[in-house]
Amino acid sequence: MEDRYSRNRIYVTQEEQKIIKEYPIILGGSGIGSAIAECALRLGFENITIIDGDQVEKSNLNRQNYTENDIGVDKTEAIKKRLLAINANANIKVHSTFLTVENAESYIKGHKIAINALDFTTEVPLIFDKLCQENNIPVLHPYNLGWGGLVTVITPKGLLLDSIKKTDGGEDFNEVNMVEYASNYLKFWGTPHLWIDEIIQKYKEEKEQLPPPQLSIASWTVAAMCTHIAFNIATEKEYKKFPEFYLSTILN
Amino acid sequence: MEDRYSRNRIYVTQEEQKIIKEYPIILGGSGIGSAIAECALRLGFENITIIDGDQVEKSNLNRQNYTENDIGVDKTEAIKKRLLAINANANIKVHSTFLTVENAESYIKGHKIAINALDFTTEVPLIFDKLCQENNIPVLHPYNLGWGGLVTVITPKGLLLDSIKKTDGGEDFNEVNMVEYASNYLKFWGTPHLWIDEIIQKYKEEKEQLPPPQLSIASWTVAAMCTHIAFNIATEKEYKKFPEFYLSTILN
Repeated sequence: MEDRYSRNRIYVTQEEQKIIKEYPIILGGSGIGSAIAECALRLGFENITIIDGDQVEKSNLNRQNYTENDIGVDKTEAIKKRLLAINANANIKVHSTFLTVENAESYIKGHKIAINALDFTTEVPLIFDKLCQENNIPVLHPYNLGWGGLVTVITPKGLLLDSIKKTDGGEDFNEVNMVEYASNYLKFWGTPHLWIDEIIQKYKEEKEQLPPPQLSIASWTVAAMCTHIAFNIATEKEYKKFPEFYLSTILN
Repeated sequence: MEDRYSRNRIYVTQEEQKIIKEYPIILGGSGIGSAIAECALRLGFENITIIDGDQVEKSNLNRQNYTENDIGVDKTEAIKKRLLAINANANIKVHSTFLTVENAESYIKGHKIAINALDFTTEVPLIFDKLCQENNIPVLHPYNLGWGGLVTVITPKGLLLDSIKKTDGGEDFNEVNMVEYASNYLKFWGTPHLWIDEIIQKYKEEKEQLPPPQLSIASWTVAAMCTHIAFNIATEKEYKKFPEFYLSTILN
């Protein structure tokens, strides 16, 4: 195994190392996506495409993979620089644009795993999943719950996320629905995480409509989880599929 | 709350943000320590001391917080640069030296949390814990198990790690003993993680005596866990103490 990956030995075979090196991942969104990309690259995913039209803000630094010098810079340019500093030979493609209903499919094509780290402020994230299904690409959905990470995987033949929304009718699907679904699922199976409900409650009670709070703790957690799940997908190991999900936290 | 930490809201109160900002953490070892330091800094621990006499090698890049340009550079200088790039106002102190029985106490004094991320190749890590106990400082022990992170906390009045070694007598305590202990503990409580035993077995069967294999997945996981536990200690919340421990993985 080459020197860079010599400490992956025992866990990752030489054959698996080769598989993930060439397994192309696309990240929709370079917020939490910026943390995931670094963890995946270090394990050995050397083919990564990242799409995001945003620029780095100071308020990103509490959890995203950027520095003070990156403030005002395109997120995709900043993360590309960071990833190439870690591995100059990696194949890092970036597009500083927002995914739209029109352009999404052209970016998705050719990838074997997608990570949907898009803001749920439009219909784009749900359409992204549908397009991935049509192109036979499993989609990881990471959620930053502050003290813990939540990840679910939409598979080519599985349910879509908005299958949840029918249960409480009416409103459009958003990340809060997903988190509420997960919390109810955990209660049903006898392992409640009441801290999640408390956070949702406080978030809903906020007077201003603000983006959800997020911590570095869950960013790092979710980066590890997505990297592990991507490894399992690429090397044809087992993994949970939506409506099942992974929750990782030291709480409870 | 200042702009940098505005997205910590709901999870972290303004008072807690102030507490952790001033809560001095010392990291013995800047291997896995380099990953922990960044996650902790981004949450808001702005007083961090790091001690390590090592230089960055290419084989570190699969899991530690360094870049290709850092190869050959002192780990402490490289991580200091990275942390100050994230927050130029943070108080980052580094010492490019190895901790010894003689110098450890002078470095430890004045800190409120210690993270023992030292190699278990000498008696220093165990003496580090003892000195922390004498100075009333809780010590976090992170272990990289590839697919998962293991963390235990030695408290000022609690047991020391080598209390484990009596059970199987003879040999000096090392990280493999700790991992075997954790695996047996999990079996006893009905939640076995057989993959851990398999890894230990394969590691013991290696012909050469090599450093343990480690993955980015567990580095990121352990960084999140240690940051969370440090937050709980600083803000006087509950946390598990050795001989209890935290294991975080998506396996099982």
